[in-house]
Amino acid sequence: MTLLTKLNWRYATKRMDGSKISSEKLENILSAIRLSPSSLGLQPYKVWVVTDPKKRQEIYEKSCHQPQVLEGSHLLVFVARKALLDNEINEYISLIASERQIPEESLAGFKNTIHGFATAKQLNPEDYSNWSARQAYIALGIGLAAAADMDVDATPMEGFDPEAMDEILGLKEKGLHSVVLMMLGHRNESTDQLVRAKKVRKSSEMLFQHV
Amino acid sequence: MTLLTKLNWRYATKRMDGSKISSEKLENILSAIRLSPSSLGLQPYKVWVVTDPKKRQEIYEKSCHQPQVLEGSHLLVFVARKALLDNEINEYISLIASERQIPEESLAGFKNTIHGFATAKQLNPEDYSNWSARQAYIALGIGLAAAADMDVDATPMEGFDPEAMDEILGLKEKGLHSVVLMMLGHRNESTDQLVRAKKVRKSSEMLFQHV
Repeated sequence: MTLLTKLNWRYATKRMDGSKISSEKLENILSAIRLSPSSLGLQPYKVWVVTDPKKRQEIYEKSCHQPQVLEGSHLLVFVARKALLDNEINEYISLIASERQIPEESLAGFKNTIHGFATAKQLNPEDYSNWSARQAYIALGIGLAAAADMDVDATPMEGFDPEAMDEILGLKEKGLHSVVLMMLGHRNESTDQLVRAKKVRKSSEMLFQHV
Repeated sequence: MTLLTKLNWRYATKRMDGSKISSEKLENILSAIRLSPSSLGLQPYKVWVVTDPKKRQEIYEKSCHQPQVLEGSHLLVFVARKALLDNEINEYISLIASERQIPEESLAGFKNTIHGFATAKQLNPEDYSNWSARQAYIALGIGLAAAADMDVDATPMEGFDPEAMDEILGLKEKGLHSVVLMMLGHRNESTDQLVRAKKVRKSSEMLFQHV
């Protein structure tokens, strides 16, 4: 299985070489993210694709000065929703009806399910934010697999100041919050000490329990 | 990119045909999960691989009677840690030292970082549980990509009673909690209404913001 070879090849790249990834590869990685599944199909997140040097500098200042933020090609910022609004549920139902060419009325039961789910989750706003963040992490995982599959280096990053990030990208007023970053680019083999470090993972015996 | 074709092929399979996936494919999917990255490399989760019919029946009763739980091949239950214990940090540091053949003392700075991180996250136990669950979701995303890549159907599932699941698998006494399921198997084309349903995803314009 080639994907396994690629997953062995990838690592959380700390130093990148400043080159850009091709627009074709970027499109493929974004397409993989777009195809990621999510609970009820709601995709309760967005992805900011940051190339603007000024924004990248601001983000660098608020993400522990990690050099790949400046050296990488495209910075993806996964941002999740804080609440599910009625108009978003309506838009989603309309999208399904239009894509599948079925009447919206036939989705009334599903719409009720979503309303019930949203109401339950939103009893505690933290719960909703955590749930939507988890959906974004599925997309992060699939994006990482897709990047590796295309020989693009990718670094998942949680080490940043989320409030500052929300400010830099103007997320708060949109009801969004930043949850995780993924830097895309190409490794710098001469400056990245981790290039040749052996990958460390728990053994199968430690990780899996067969019952 | 083949992976994109596979991601288009996959869908959250609701009805499976009762056949087993090959042990080679299972091993490859578990290897992909094992290779998934996690924050600080901590892999703060485990995966239960459930084939026992009695356990599967019990889980079925507590996961909204979703038929794929009985009809599928292998049920993966991603379980995350509720806290990071000192001995786990020590084991992790030993593992890195042994895999990379470096003295443990050279990892003292990294060990301090992990301690600081764990202490901060564990000020609020909910925070730690949510963080560890998110790491499991990266592995879920990569597992979903790997399954699709191997032409294995996979259904991510959040619709289950987590407390009952913890009871069924004896997780609580191990400091673990169930966070998400992934059913592996083969679609039943004659009974699954969704087999031919068009995949619905937000447009790139809705999902991505370029800055």
